[in-house]
Amino acid sequence: MQKIRIGIAGLGTVGGEAVRLLRDAAPDFERRLGARLELVAVCDRRAPEKARALGLPKGIRLYRDPAKLAADPDLDVVVETLGGLEEARRFTLASLERGRHVVTANKRLLAHHWRELFAVSRAARRRLYFEGSVAGGIPILAALHRSLAANRIRRVLGILNGTTNFILTRMSSGALTLEAALEEAQEKGLAEKDPTLDLNGTDAAHKVAVLASLATGRWVRPEAVAREGITRVAPEDMGFAARELERTIRLIGCVDMDWSARPARVACHVYPTLVPNDHPLASVHGEYNAVLVEASAAGDLMFYGKGAGAGPAASAVVGDLFLLASEMLSGPPRDAGMVWRKDGETRLVPVDETTSSFYLRLAVKDRPGALARITGALAAKRISISRIHQETPSGKAPVPVSLTTHPARQRDFLAATAAIRRLADVAPGHAWLRML
Amino acid sequence: MQKIRIGIAGLGTVGGEAVRLLRDAAPDFERRLGARLELVAVCDRRAPEKARALGLPKGIRLYRDPAKLAADPDLDVVVETLGGLEEARRFTLASLERGRHVVTANKRLLAHHWRELFAVSRAARRRLYFEGSVAGGIPILAALHRSLAANRIRRVLGILNGTTNFILTRMSSGALTLEAALEEAQEKGLAEKDPTLDLNGTDAAHKVAVLASLATGRWVRPEAVAREGITRVAPEDMGFAARELERTIRLIGCVDMDWSARPARVACHVYPTLVPNDHPLASVHGEYNAVLVEASAAGDLMFYGKGAGAGPAASAVVGDLFLLASEMLSGPPRDAGMVWRKDGETRLVPVDETTSSFYLRLAVKDRPGALARITGALAAKRISISRIHQETPSGKAPVPVSLTTHPARQRDFLAATAAIRRLADVAPGHAWLRML
Repeated sequence: MQKIRIGIAGLGTVGGEAVRLLRDAAPDFERRLGARLELVAVCDRRAPEKARALGLPKGIRLYRDPAKLAADPDLDVVVETLGGLEEARRFTLASLERGRHVVTANKRLLAHHWRELFAVSRAARRRLYFEGSVAGGIPILAALHRSLAANRIRRVLGILNGTTNFILTRMSSGALTLEAALEEAQEKGLAEKDPTLDLNGTDAAHKVAVLASLATGRWVRPEAVAREGITRVAPEDMGFAARELERTIRLIGCVDMDWSARPARVACHVYPTLVPNDHPLASVHGEYNAVLVEASAAGDLMFYGKGAGAGPAASAVVGDLFLLASEMLSGPPRDAGMVWRKDGETRLVPVDETTSSFYLRLAVKDRPGALARITGALAAKRISISRIHQETPSGKAPVPVSLTTHPARQRDFLAATAAIRRLADVAPGHAWLRML
Repeated sequence: MQKIRIGIAGLGTVGGEAVRLLRDAAPDFERRLGARLELVAVCDRRAPEKARALGLPKGIRLYRDPAKLAADPDLDVVVETLGGLEEARRFTLASLERGRHVVTANKRLLAHHWRELFAVSRAARRRLYFEGSVAGGIPILAALHRSLAANRIRRVLGILNGTTNFILTRMSSGALTLEAALEEAQEKGLAEKDPTLDLNGTDAAHKVAVLASLATGRWVRPEAVAREGITRVAPEDMGFAARELERTIRLIGCVDMDWSARPARVACHVYPTLVPNDHPLASVHGEYNAVLVEASAAGDLMFYGKGAGAGPAASAVVGDLFLLASEMLSGPPRDAGMVWRKDGETRLVPVDETTSSFYLRLAVKDRPGALARITGALAAKRISISRIHQETPSGKAPVPVSLTTHPARQRDFLAATAAIRRLADVAPGHAWLRML
């Protein structure tokens, strides 16, 4: 029976779980593929201990240095579950150059080095699969890359970070502060000790960069993804949205494509966003992820599942191994299997040029004509107001005024907001949010 | 440039839309595959008119008889969008035998002739793809067959029929009767003139049979899928569920697998089901479909989208063409590409042996001890009650009593219900529902 020889670099939670899944699935894969997927080498700083803990059989070659695994001459496919950036990059490039196909779930690696990785993959005629890099066990990349091949992708909207979604859900359902919700997430193992990259939207932005690169066929650098995290999400805005707007706040990653423009315009961003309660993304609670795809022929599709954790990521990694194996068994690769969809040239547009409805909260002093001056500043930018809500004044303290706009350019909205904040009527302390 | 020659049998709404999508996607496919997918022949009873209406170029061969298209010597892949059963079967078998790969979206064909179709496909070493047969544009079969290959599938729960989901949604949100909701569906083109196969659950049962066959690796005949439609769903049960149980009624198709038993037990059924309001399937409204997959490693995943209509079905058909083309270009098929997942032997169990919580509504006469005798009949079958609700008696008319049970075998529950209905305390007119 034909053998496909696999090496795994990094036996952390995901790599270790991939070892277990591969072992459990082996009999089924053998029957389906008529070939054996065999783990023959692993690499980890603590390789001997890890191998014992995982019950790996004796014959498996153990390395401590990823470069050694990349140089192993008897491998067909390697899995990169090292994590980090530079070591993962070196290992992946060296493996492709040595003629190995590579599977990874490392979104940072892909977001930062997309062009280089796929240039080497093409030159070496070896494939680089990465289903686990976005939304864990949800097969969103297979859908965008293969199943929806006949569609133009108009928009991808995603809840791509489970930590922040858990925090927002608890702030809303449990009326917790952000700090208390974060603490709960950490207790449940849903947030890291240093949650900065989750809270400030960097992790979601990496995933948006991967989705955008896949959907447009060009490398969208992570720096090109406008981002804001959830740290300025205030309980009062969440409460107001629930009471008055029938909306909830979610951290939404967005790839928005306008194919009617030439070249097509692509905007990529991550923002805390007011989502209508009856929108499918509003019912994504806790640590779950979801991706909504607006496709030209198939219509709106949503994919929902666990975005993090060893099981979902390893499911994606071993799914990629299965796919690679079935392709390898069909014959030598005639291409890198990775010619991206590319419905024409695209131009990245800054988020300032995008259009959205907006929510704005201000602290307004009780002075005659204050509201007229505020709405006037919006009108000066030709932004029309959808609704406005002023709390009853009590004493001399500034009163919260919340308003929502009809669709407007973000640049115009932010300019109007800056003008409003300069008014003598307005006290410090304001907040704004995009709306779906 | 290499050419892949395609024939389409049946230029109805799906076939016609597939022609258009294929034409629109052609430049992108050419760039991605390095080969041209070329429509070279079509077949339709009104082929010349249809060809004109679709603006097909002159050179395309037109047939009126599917057998002629199947016999056309210059084809690589054919699409079966004839509909119906016997003609579609003959065309598909003849095409496979002539060495064509086949794409179809015909769930009836697959459900009824699975074994024969794939026996011929294997013998001919030609592939039969069918993503469009279940849940329209949602790539659920790709997920089960490929992306989730590393998982054991524990359960598949689906809202698989858009017509009935639209009707149930309108009955609940608009407080319409079933008849009024059906009329509205027909006006919107969401129900056929003769909606019998939708209303009585047959269409959903065909899709469950396809999902079950794919998930178990054995042919699950449509007759093996226990089914009940929505015609006995009463507004009063819907209202009670909303008020008292925080649940809504959905027509749920289910494939339930118990891998801890040897052989593994598989139960397949379609029932109107009480779904908790916070369950992801409860927020699937209108004509949308959704499939929830409980996978061993990836956890719970949900796929949501439009289950019907020319666009979604054609998106799936042309997606299958893309996939087939990329596989064909890798080399001659060494297998039929269709060796099913098969995590071991399975045994189909009748729905009577399945376990669920149940809802029961009775009309009870106001007699001392009536409730004791009713609950006693349940206790005699060792079924424990979760809650019970009796309306205030007014006059001598029987009073509605609604109760829910803890998990019980369906056989026991139905036996207890039969015993209860024989009690002198109980007037005619009862209803029961499974609960998620």
